[in-house]
Amino acid sequence: MEFIAPGIYKISLGIPENITPVSLRRNGIEAKGLERLPEAELPFSVEKIGFQVTARGCTVELPLANEEGLYGFGLQLKSFNQRGLKKVLRTNSDPVADTGDSHAPVPFYCSTAGYGVLVDTARNAAFYCGTHDRQGGISKSSEESNAIGANPSELYAMREHKGQRAVAVDIPAAKGVDLYLFCGPNIIHAVQRYNLFSGGGCLPPMWGLGVWYRIWGKANQAQAEELALAMRQAKMPCDVFGLEPGWHSHSYSCSYQWNKERFPDPDKMVSRLNGLDFKVNLWEHAFTHPSAPFHDDMKPYSGDYEVWGGLVPDFSMVEVQNLFGGYHKEQFVQKGIAGFKLDECDSSDYCSSPWSFPDCSIFPSGMDGEQMHNALGTLYQHTLQDVFHRVNRRTLSQCRSSHAIAASLPFVLYSDLYDHKDFIRGVVNSGFSGLLWSPEVRQCNSVEELIRRVQSVVFSAQTLVNAWMIPNPPWLQVDLDKNMNGEFLDNAAEVEAMCRRLFQLRMSLLPYLYSAFSEYRFDGIPPFRALVMDYPEDLATHGIDDEYMMGRHILVAPVIAGETGRRIYLPKGNWYCYWTNERYTGGQWYQLNVPLEQIPLFVQENSLLPLANPVECITDETCFSLYVRCYGTEPCDFTLFEDDMTTYDYEQGSYNTLRLARDGSGYSVTHMGNDPARRYEVAGWDMIP
Amino acid sequence: MEFIAPGIYKISLGIPENITPVSLRRNGIEAKGLERLPEAELPFSVEKIGFQVTARGCTVELPLANEEGLYGFGLQLKSFNQRGLKKVLRTNSDPVADTGDSHAPVPFYCSTAGYGVLVDTARNAAFYCGTHDRQGGISKSSEESNAIGANPSELYAMREHKGQRAVAVDIPAAKGVDLYLFCGPNIIHAVQRYNLFSGGGCLPPMWGLGVWYRIWGKANQAQAEELALAMRQAKMPCDVFGLEPGWHSHSYSCSYQWNKERFPDPDKMVSRLNGLDFKVNLWEHAFTHPSAPFHDDMKPYSGDYEVWGGLVPDFSMVEVQNLFGGYHKEQFVQKGIAGFKLDECDSSDYCSSPWSFPDCSIFPSGMDGEQMHNALGTLYQHTLQDVFHRVNRRTLSQCRSSHAIAASLPFVLYSDLYDHKDFIRGVVNSGFSGLLWSPEVRQCNSVEELIRRVQSVVFSAQTLVNAWMIPNPPWLQVDLDKNMNGEFLDNAAEVEAMCRRLFQLRMSLLPYLYSAFSEYRFDGIPPFRALVMDYPEDLATHGIDDEYMMGRHILVAPVIAGETGRRIYLPKGNWYCYWTNERYTGGQWYQLNVPLEQIPLFVQENSLLPLANPVECITDETCFSLYVRCYGTEPCDFTLFEDDMTTYDYEQGSYNTLRLARDGSGYSVTHMGNDPARRYEVAGWDMIP
Repeated sequence: MEFIAPGIYKISLGIPENITPVSLRRNGIEAKGLERLPEAELPFSVEKIGFQVTARGCTVELPLANEEGLYGFGLQLKSFNQRGLKKVLRTNSDPVADTGDSHAPVPFYCSTAGYGVLVDTARNAAFYCGTHDRQGGISKSSEESNAIGANPSELYAMREHKGQRAVAVDIPAAKGVDLYLFCGPNIIHAVQRYNLFSGGGCLPPMWGLGVWYRIWGKANQAQAEELALAMRQAKMPCDVFGLEPGWHSHSYSCSYQWNKERFPDPDKMVSRLNGLDFKVNLWEHAFTHPSAPFHDDMKPYSGDYEVWGGLVPDFSMVEVQNLFGGYHKEQFVQKGIAGFKLDECDSSDYCSSPWSFPDCSIFPSGMDGEQMHNALGTLYQHTLQDVFHRVNRRTLSQCRSSHAIAASLPFVLYSDLYDHKDFIRGVVNSGFSGLLWSPEVRQCNSVEELIRRVQSVVFSAQTLVNAWMIPNPPWLQVDLDKNMNGEFLDNAAEVEAMCRRLFQLRMSLLPYLYSAFSEYRFDGIPPFRALVMDYPEDLATHGIDDEYMMGRHILVAPVIAGETGRRIYLPKGNWYCYWTNERYTGGQWYQLNVPLEQIPLFVQENSLLPLANPVECITDETCFSLYVRCYGTEPCDFTLFEDDMTTYDYEQGSYNTLRLARDGSGYSVTHMGNDPARRYEVAGWDMIP
Repeated sequence: MEFIAPGIYKISLGIPENITPVSLRRNGIEAKGLERLPEAELPFSVEKIGFQVTARGCTVELPLANEEGLYGFGLQLKSFNQRGLKKVLRTNSDPVADTGDSHAPVPFYCSTAGYGVLVDTARNAAFYCGTHDRQGGISKSSEESNAIGANPSELYAMREHKGQRAVAVDIPAAKGVDLYLFCGPNIIHAVQRYNLFSGGGCLPPMWGLGVWYRIWGKANQAQAEELALAMRQAKMPCDVFGLEPGWHSHSYSCSYQWNKERFPDPDKMVSRLNGLDFKVNLWEHAFTHPSAPFHDDMKPYSGDYEVWGGLVPDFSMVEVQNLFGGYHKEQFVQKGIAGFKLDECDSSDYCSSPWSFPDCSIFPSGMDGEQMHNALGTLYQHTLQDVFHRVNRRTLSQCRSSHAIAASLPFVLYSDLYDHKDFIRGVVNSGFSGLLWSPEVRQCNSVEELIRRVQSVVFSAQTLVNAWMIPNPPWLQVDLDKNMNGEFLDNAAEVEAMCRRLFQLRMSLLPYLYSAFSEYRFDGIPPFRALVMDYPEDLATHGIDDEYMMGRHILVAPVIAGETGRRIYLPKGNWYCYWTNERYTGGQWYQLNVPLEQIPLFVQENSLLPLANPVECITDETCFSLYVRCYGTEPCDFTLFEDDMTTYDYEQGSYNTLRLARDGSGYSVTHMGNDPARRYEVAGWDMIP
């Protein structure tokens, strides 16, 4: 067992492959954060880890104690506690069942026993999470049932298992693998160590935490500019304007060149949008059409199969990074483009017409299609992230695929799937694996659904409205056909106002969120995470997949359309309803009615919540005027992170902290650091109750 | 290229694995049938076949011409023409999407160009059926679209492809593979050669073609006997009575011993049921509970993981065949049991709680879990089929999994899935791959659905009503709760009568069907098959997945609940409606209204259709009284197959044929053969029109 960093160990089994997530990583370990974590040991002996090489690849068996809950495996939308389940971690769009396929499968899991395991493979590894007994094992359930099932649920009930098992990891093709073991003491520390091992979480520019709007796919330049103006006139908070495929002269595959019919003067448009304080984000995918200027040069560095008539770049090669990244830098980033939406970089087995390259593809670096499917998302992100790093501008962008060791990449995941419950589970699960996820708002069947979905994105890593199918904002008309025809809702003004208030709530939480992301960056604490991470001792939290913590102090319990209330569990301790300031005793369930305009939010007792006067968007001059809500009566504090909000200068220490504190003697603000940035003014303190 | 048999060639690529479907086969080639087929050549040069060994396994690339349609891959429920699709052939229960997962995936496909290919692997091979262009390939579509999609179907439409591609087969783990190539000249001949290579199709006992009824899972002996009596009193045709898990003293895993509380005297029950001319079929699966008498002896010959606390037998080992098969012979087959339902031998990745052994399991024969998953169904079938063969009694049984080279195994597939359209597509597709499939009737939401589903099973390989969830027959009550409470439909007598008439129609078709199965046995012609097999030149048939041929002359076009009619394509030639005797011109589509009591059936012009007076069940003495319908005016004939209906003596030539013929001078019956069996009397000839 090799020491890697405090609380992180590596075990090499057999002859590991050359191409793995760790071999492809580009960020170093964030060592300082690891030093701040408590000391801990693994709760099992590594000698109990089994390993076998077979004709098919290799198999690892990891110990698993009774009652251990397992979480992680990336963006799993359909299950939460993975114990008892089989997960094949294959990058795939739109999985239709709980098989492990995911836009962002991550071969990392963490346990309520207080540890985490990264299996360093880019293969479609299968994890059998305590699903099976060994022949002749000692772990038979003593409660044998002799009952007969006469319907599927009875049959299923008879097959339940209680006993000690193992996690068997079945890795195809590889003749060995490295395991990275992350100590606790608790599950959150294991996740922090994993995120710090990944380079620490990303710190988005402040504008990235504002409201995003992706415009109609068929819009032209004039329509885009009009819409931007209309948003400002309507005083809808919005920071990012996203263009969909139509900006390309050819998409599917992509030309990465402006369509000059629809967008005759893109430089002027970008400058006008920037003038209105919108950041511009451009949609693309990696499959490179022959008309792309760098297509021919990139040929030798691309896979042997094409997708939609386009090259599949081998982003692991420095030549591609230079060609593809260099072109993006020159043509877009240096011309004011603030970020990209990297689409279609997962794969497709579940849609009616499968696309993407075959698993048996071969790439010039030696990667094969299976490895590339799992690595493409992170390699693509790295390529564009490097461009922004080189010009010392941060981005927050979007990507439809990710994988292991991706916490430091400033990309938020999204999906073409759309079940609202699954989307909320995605927020909860993403925090286990160093991922960010947006349950984006798209088409809605009703105003009620629109509002409920807006609430979820407001309380997620990215407040994204993706209106690519409709010319007008959904709050003016949710019906697709009517929206196309410009017929607006009778109560459009009212619906717009409800959405505006929700977006304003988001904007008022930006300082709080920015602080949460700084803790993600430096300490690896996921800004959005399951309750089990903060309350591991409270067993009721171990199964809760529809509530989560946002930042240090806020518990979020979204409501979906069709529900007028919901059951909410509040963990041990006391809580205040954000809306009514009513105090709730934790450690129990509540059945609460929830008016449409509210999303259930609870703030921990004895905490400080800085709320800003909402701005419409972030500018270089933005300075937040804060009212600090003080919940409870015990001494408490909260630290804000302050910097220029947009560059990587913080990496060289150019930032300040503002420590807000309240104790028996009163309130205090302690400003530390020498950066000239001044982003916060404390305008008042509200005592609650 | 090695000559195997007339029109069958083998190509060895690399170093093939030891364990493959062909290596596990137990039946020889049915050579005589091959000699009767027309001579043919492969429509492509085998030098165009590409092959590559990689770290992941190996890849084969097979030529694919423009406009070629591809069919097969086993029991594919969700698609028909496989061109343009990716299929990963993995044995799995209840697949939720068109991924290739199937109860019976078969690595065999056939082409409208008139050939078939068996890729001899037990691996989860992926077939990319012309999905991709090679980088720099010459086959680019010239119609590039510059349109922009603003909804998913528009995007999809832009991704259509037209051009020449290949079938890439991606085989994990293997460093080589054998290909078996089957010549035409037409698609049906390729399928016939494949079936004859598999030993010829199975010939069920005549009773197997009758009506099957699986009784309530919780029924005890008295209730089973009562139900049997009630069926006879109601004069419902029925040949087979199936018992579900409740007969075991322990199931999930299985004890293979009678539960003496529920079934105090099984010998007496079997004898009483046999006395009422019911054959008895017993449900089981292969996972062997410690209380099974042969459990301990079988331990050394089982996999290293258990399923539901039971051993996983390695049926490829002669020791298991003797232990498991020997026990079944002694305890069941010799005591009058006529067949088995082999459940749960697929695998499970799509249910809420995955079961079956891991892919990384290791079996004493050297097989691994992946291979065993794909081979378990056929090995299990072989083990029990051998028992019946040894006692010289044929069975028709059920099995939930199958694979390649399985045509000779007398087992019919079924599924827990239940979409009626998919079930009908299963009938159509099963004929491409040497499989039989029953779209079994189970729960129904309405009387209409019951009738429509009964019609489908009456026109399938197995007329199966699976009433395991209800104590009373579904024609007395379709509502589950009411059925449990013994509340019957107001019009129960009427519904029962409709079902009875449909079952009688089945019984009247038994001689015709038995003849079709004899052609399956000796000539490899699937008794149920897609129109494209009989009408390859008629391009309209190439996409039809909801009509099929049953036997030589009958076209079936089932209707599903909610439809009062349907579009029906009749291939070139003339057709007669079975019900009205109306004549239809082929080569065109018809929109027809279809009364509930009818399933659309069309008989070819100039054909003879022998219809029997329906019997309630088959006994050793059964002799069918036939009325021969003569459609059209041209000379035509039909050959009936006659034997003892139950033994393998036909293999030694103990059978007769009855050639019915009609020409200008009249009707004739030519009886050939020296077997004493007399199963048919021609009572009359009906001229139509």
